[in-house]
Amino acid sequence: MTLPPLSAMSLNITSLHAAYARGLSPADVLREAFARIAAADDPAIFIHLRSADAALAEAAALPPFDPAAFPLWGVPFAIKDNIDVAGAPTTAACPAFAYTPAEDAFVVARLRAAGAIWLGKTNLDQFATGLVGVRSPYGVPRNALDPQIVPGGSSSGSAVAVARGLVSFALGTDTAGSGRVPAALNNIVGLKPSLGALSGSGMVPACRTLDTISVFGLTVDDAWTATRTACAFDPADPWSKPIPMPALSAAPQGLSIGIPDAASLKVFGDRVQAEAFAAATDALRDMGHRICEIDFTPFYDVASLLYEGAWVAERMAAVEPLFRADPGVFHPVTAQIIGAADRLSATDAFRGIYRLAALKRVTASAMAGLELLAVPTIPAFCTLADLAADPIGPNSRLGTYTNFVNLLNLCGIAVPTGPRRDGRPGSVTLLARDGQDVLAAGLARALHRQRAPDMGATGQPLPPAAQLAPQALVTELPLVLVG
Amino acid sequence: MTLPPLSAMSLNITSLHAAYARGLSPADVLREAFARIAAADDPAIFIHLRSADAALAEAAALPPFDPAAFPLWGVPFAIKDNIDVAGAPTTAACPAFAYTPAEDAFVVARLRAAGAIWLGKTNLDQFATGLVGVRSPYGVPRNALDPQIVPGGSSSGSAVAVARGLVSFALGTDTAGSGRVPAALNNIVGLKPSLGALSGSGMVPACRTLDTISVFGLTVDDAWTATRTACAFDPADPWSKPIPMPALSAAPQGLSIGIPDAASLKVFGDRVQAEAFAAATDALRDMGHRICEIDFTPFYDVASLLYEGAWVAERMAAVEPLFRADPGVFHPVTAQIIGAADRLSATDAFRGIYRLAALKRVTASAMAGLELLAVPTIPAFCTLADLAADPIGPNSRLGTYTNFVNLLNLCGIAVPTGPRRDGRPGSVTLLARDGQDVLAAGLARALHRQRAPDMGATGQPLPPAAQLAPQALVTELPLVLVG
Repeated sequence: MTLPPLSAMSLNITSLHAAYARGLSPADVLREAFARIAAADDPAIFIHLRSADAALAEAAALPPFDPAAFPLWGVPFAIKDNIDVAGAPTTAACPAFAYTPAEDAFVVARLRAAGAIWLGKTNLDQFATGLVGVRSPYGVPRNALDPQIVPGGSSSGSAVAVARGLVSFALGTDTAGSGRVPAALNNIVGLKPSLGALSGSGMVPACRTLDTISVFGLTVDDAWTATRTACAFDPADPWSKPIPMPALSAAPQGLSIGIPDAASLKVFGDRVQAEAFAAATDALRDMGHRICEIDFTPFYDVASLLYEGAWVAERMAAVEPLFRADPGVFHPVTAQIIGAADRLSATDAFRGIYRLAALKRVTASAMAGLELLAVPTIPAFCTLADLAADPIGPNSRLGTYTNFVNLLNLCGIAVPTGPRRDGRPGSVTLLARDGQDVLAAGLARALHRQRAPDMGATGQPLPPAAQLAPQALVTELPLVLVG
Repeated sequence: MTLPPLSAMSLNITSLHAAYARGLSPADVLREAFARIAAADDPAIFIHLRSADAALAEAAALPPFDPAAFPLWGVPFAIKDNIDVAGAPTTAACPAFAYTPAEDAFVVARLRAAGAIWLGKTNLDQFATGLVGVRSPYGVPRNALDPQIVPGGSSSGSAVAVARGLVSFALGTDTAGSGRVPAALNNIVGLKPSLGALSGSGMVPACRTLDTISVFGLTVDDAWTATRTACAFDPADPWSKPIPMPALSAAPQGLSIGIPDAASLKVFGDRVQAEAFAAATDALRDMGHRICEIDFTPFYDVASLLYEGAWVAERMAAVEPLFRADPGVFHPVTAQIIGAADRLSATDAFRGIYRLAALKRVTASAMAGLELLAVPTIPAFCTLADLAADPIGPNSRLGTYTNFVNLLNLCGIAVPTGPRRDGRPGSVTLLARDGQDVLAAGLARALHRQRAPDMGATGQPLPPAAQLAPQALVTELPLVLVG
């Protein structure tokens, strides 16, 4: 068999490793990736691009191809620029904040040890504050599918880089939905693990109690492989904890899946999105799962706490010295959002914590008997023009189905569900309880294959599915969720 | 066999139930209890005393004596006046705050359903803010053993009522040590359960994220019986959670117990306390346990967060409307402490939470391999004169070995260890991880019997020990504590 021409090859890990097994050289792949980055003609995707020589030298030093020992052998990836890579500047999209770390972030070190090769640091909404991808002094990455639409944020560059096939996968971060919203807007997979699964050591915090590193991939298998590889307990991160990340097995059967009922589904007038979501839930039903409509009001109540409640003060805590010294170096919208923390007292903070505790009881009751929730990843699309007219409102609406997730300690995965009637990408997020990442990912994989959209903006179909072992259920969680 | 004269009888539950089994009437016991309260000649113990008629009517309505079905049958108890009893005022020692609830607190209802009969609402440091028992407009209860010494707080009246033999047991609350410090100062048992074990529904909060109702008893068996009976999951309290509270079994063997090493033991010059603690730890060693000296500095660092960090803002959250309307109705020291919340921002609150998260890693590491910690309940004694000279400093010192406990989500039990060389009461607190209450109580019971001090200020010895079943270990905690 001959190898396909590199220029036509998807960089998804499955295809890449199949080609490596047949003799393709990582150096050729890296050269192709850098060529694609140049051809992409979008200087706003990367804030810092690694030198090709350094990447090629790393590739040359790889041990022999052994994907069992090195599950990311020769896999090029991008890193959101609020995550440290030794020797490269970390800006968090704020040049005045920039520093050059001496060490890789914990997660980056694990990925590299597994054979992955980083190519660049990607653009973001400054300090990961935003879901739109336009709040950066480094420009606005073009949405991979439609330049009228926002790229989504805050992990804008990472999502676009994956969707355009420039890298195999990319790291994002997710506090309010930054690892899911841009996945939906660019037709790729966005995996937001359980809090504590991926160490935050070497990541610039947004809200330390809610942050996690996340993974974008072209397929669920790729996102899962990278997440699993990155996942390990890190004693240096006070929020790190052991989370089960077994190999994906065959899709779980007969699940009970909650969705917003008709009265509480929010699409802000985008009926096409409602249709697309209904089609996706029909697909889940056809796969043998039980779909249960529930009132989503308490989840929206939780979501409102994130920016209207006290958690914005965590964003101030992350940047306070710079903010006090020179607020003018911040993006004006970011400065406005973070500055709101100054109106909040410690008493307000605890009142927010109490309100969340009370709402957790209500949402736990709503989720009783359900293994998963399924929601549209975004309620409606948002154009650059919408955002120019109102920089805050459309951003808030994008977080409708993401803002509550980290506050409730759920994990989730956004997965493409095929083009909507108008051609825009459909996306559903499957949400599970803390530690049940494998359940959400297993179902997401099956749904992705059932809908079988082309990957990202590459125009390429999903690679053939690997045969998986029969389902192994995750051990029941020790914490009782009682209504 | 004839019954002993009532006036000479201890009200501990074991003795009381033995007498009930032989025909003693609850009405006679209640009359005796009210007579003792009158004879105690201390109007500062109770803020509100129940009418004897009401108590006797309740006793008359009890079902036949059946301690298996009603483990607190005919048992008189007192309730700290920040916990609701239907129809009686709740003041939290602030007359302007008073209200009359329509319902019993969840825990009170459970105790009454088990046959316990409440006699009165007890005095406290206003809003449970203090460890001294002198911060109340209702006077200062006299310490049961020595009128020069503070009664201890904030659960002052409850501890003194038990120590003087006026009731069988009493409810306190514990945020910073209010359920342990007064136990030490009055030579009784103080059980502070795991957070979430005893519902906070119907309790005036101090720091909602750290509060628990606690139990004072003359013996560990009594405190355990009342705690077990009160313990149940309460969906209406967002902090309630299922905690195992099995019957006590024979004392656990061969435990590894951490104690402060010589360099970090704090007694503020009270060498007699250091001697008494050494004797108690020798007793634990002689019982076959391994005593491990550890550096206690990180535990003190946690303790300092409680009043110097942001948690004081929780106290403001609990009383803010009244505080804004009329700060003059507060005890001046209480007003000063709670008012400090106004200097704390929401950002400060989250910084405190981050600092605690980091310190939890350090203390977990210090506790690795240990099942329990043993500490002096108080580092040194504190007289009324000390406190008149400085109302804050001596109070803070009393919390040396208690302030860190709830922040670290530990459970604990303070147990008398016999008179010190100078006759003052010795007390050790055994601390265990969340959910391991039965381990701490089992060892406390054995230590109490081994030291065998008279109970409280009653001059009466411990009742004969019941034969217990062999030890049944609590299931391992699901949460990994990693260093």
